Amino acid sequence: MSHHPMGWTADRRLTVLDQTLLPHEERWLVLDTVESVAEAIRTLRVRGAPAIGIAAAMGLSGALRGRGAGGRRELLAALEEGAAALRAARPTAVNLGWAMDRMLRRGNATPGGPDAVLAALEAEAQAIWDEDVEACRRIAEAGQQLVAGCAEAKLRREGQGGGARGGAVVNVLTHCNTGFLATGGVGTALGIVHVAAERGTRLHVWVDETRPLLQGSRLTAWELAKAGIPHAVLPDGAAASLMAAGRVDLVLVGADRVARNGDTANKVGTYPLAIAARHHGVPFYVVAPWSSFDPACATGAGIPIEQRDAGEVLRPLGVPAAPRGSGAYNPAFDVTPAEMITGWVTERGVLGPPFEAGRP
Amino acid sequence: MSHHPMGWTADRRLTVLDQTLLPHEERWLVLDTVESVAEAIRTLRVRGAPAIGIAAAMGLSGALRGRGAGGRRELLAALEEGAAALRAARPTAVNLGWAMDRMLRRGNATPGGPDAVLAALEAEAQAIWDEDVEACRRIAEAGQQLVAGCAEAKLRREGQGGGARGGAVVNVLTHCNTGFLATGGVGTALGIVHVAAERGTRLHVWVDETRPLLQGSRLTAWELAKAGIPHAVLPDGAAASLMAAGRVDLVLVGADRVARNGDTANKVGTYPLAIAARHHGVPFYVVAPWSSFDPACATGAGIPIEQRDAGEVLRPLGVPAAPRGSGAYNPAFDVTPAEMITGWVTERGVLGPPFEAGRP
Repeated sequence: MSHHPMGWTADRRLTVLDQTLLPHEERWLVLDTVESVAEAIRTLRVRGAPAIGIAAAMGLSGALRGRGAGGRRELLAALEEGAAALRAARPTAVNLGWAMDRMLRRGNATPGGPDAVLAALEAEAQAIWDEDVEACRRIAEAGQQLVAGCAEAKLRREGQGGGARGGAVVNVLTHCNTGFLATGGVGTALGIVHVAAERGTRLHVWVDETRPLLQGSRLTAWELAKAGIPHAVLPDGAAASLMAAGRVDLVLVGADRVARNGDTANKVGTYPLAIAARHHGVPFYVVAPWSSFDPACATGAGIPIEQRDAGEVLRPLGVPAAPRGSGAYNPAFDVTPAEMITGWVTERGVLGPPFEAGRP
Repeated sequence: MSHHPMGWTADRRLTVLDQTLLPHEERWLVLDTVESVAEAIRTLRVRGAPAIGIAAAMGLSGALRGRGAGGRRELLAALEEGAAALRAARPTAVNLGWAMDRMLRRGNATPGGPDAVLAALEAEAQAIWDEDVEACRRIAEAGQQLVAGCAEAKLRREGQGGGARGGAVVNVLTHCNTGFLATGGVGTALGIVHVAAERGTRLHVWVDETRPLLQGSRLTAWELAKAGIPHAVLPDGAAASLMAAGRVDLVLVGADRVARNGDTANKVGTYPLAIAARHHGVPFYVVAPWSSFDPACATGAGIPIEQRDAGEVLRPLGVPAAPRGSGAYNPAFDVTPAEMITGWVTERGVLGPPFEAGRP
């Protein structure tokens, strides 16, 4: 997969695919100020925990290019200010703060004048991106065993006979978007699917539409259509009945932050999926790069959950659907307790808690 | 509550409030042919298991008024044909078949010429409506103990002290629409809420938006706004996190059909709510008139589940949200196994299975 939701312009500024316009329009924006990058993150033009860390780092590097004339001290002050503004754009995903920490450390640790600092910041942003590409690749490798295990179990259950030509079809259910649009590489949960399909595994993907912002129907279905992978979109409330009917073999979701004990914040609607999966004995895996793990956060209770604008619920796709004056409850995320999760697929393999700092 | 979603015109034809236009427009339609009534039921202009039984009976009566000239035999043939067409309009709700059975029995059992038969059919349709008004009233009475029990338990937990002025606020979560728009009377699950609020109980209602057709945001929020009852709309996937936070005291949902063993078909998204409610120890009640119980159906496996058009999922409110060519899984209902349900609130009290014919 060579699609990325971000890139550098010729003069090394950030450009991003505006994901709010998908699946109907593919429009690229050049974001050359900290404020425009923060706005793009807040309004989900760029989204996905890994992608916003990368875009924030690249955007910060690009935005600071005009700030070298005042000398090193002024540049480092602008770096500090820009990192703080970007860090505040979305509170839940840990990758954003982690990427800003890296940029600050690199800038401050680089000796010399503003040009040297700017070059180092650009290199750091590029390194954050490169590492995510590699993390996605390794995560997708680590996840292949889960898909293969499902295919083998189905073949055993269904016998040697009918329907087995080319292997059993593995039915994966996913929520929100965790593919190449959400990362710098092939994706996390959906990256496993992309790689398995490329290697010839027969897959069918159940795509939760993922209200309120429909990242499942708008983004995941778009990625799967591009990749030619069979899929169907469903209302979030229909997933449990698919599980009851034995039509889901594996649930793969992403993460915006994983606490030390394994409690996992992800897009709202993930937690009820986990409860339903456990009720039906369906394996439920969280798939995330190590940069989404936060060993400093002991449990899910310590993860800040962003409340978003009521209009996202009350006006789906901009069309008013509720009476004027009705309020909404619109958390961006929910927290799934560790004990509901079968395993965590990372670039370091399939792991379980505790997730200690520095642990390979 | 004196709002009804259906009525008679001066010349005794069916008129219905077009619920597809709510909450923004209140437009009444006159439906004077069997085909127009069937279309209104299929397209959910009139919906809610009790309401479609009533509207089908009234609509059939009104549509047959022009068919008396050919004599009794021709009228009864048109009755048979019309009842069959309306019965087929939606397969899951048992009330529709039940209302058609009553109309057929009454028409065939009435002696005399076409005028006598037409008068009897109109009286039968009115009786079906009147009985639903009374059933709703008695259901709402039977349900008051549940709300009162929650209020008392909260007061005990929260102590005699703060926040108890006027009683604790009971947080009810509901799915889809089960109020006066769904019935001929005050409603079923939401009828309990309407009556409790009228009597001064402090309530707050969490309204699942209920994808794909948003009957929660469009209809239930509209009813609650009209009644001045505090409420907030949420994406269906956010209900479980509210339960985890202890912010739901009671779940009340309706039913389209209850099997003899208690398995309950209701709007898709009900089943995952039941799983989450059990996981969190939140009481989960099905609220339905006896006409929604089907003792002839042994278990949920015998309930036909209607699959609806993919466009309802892929084009929310008519706006394309998924790529061209993506498919959808769009069952109208799911089945909640009896063991996940705390109790069934009916006009005969709060009951448990088996639900035998003629009981109690």
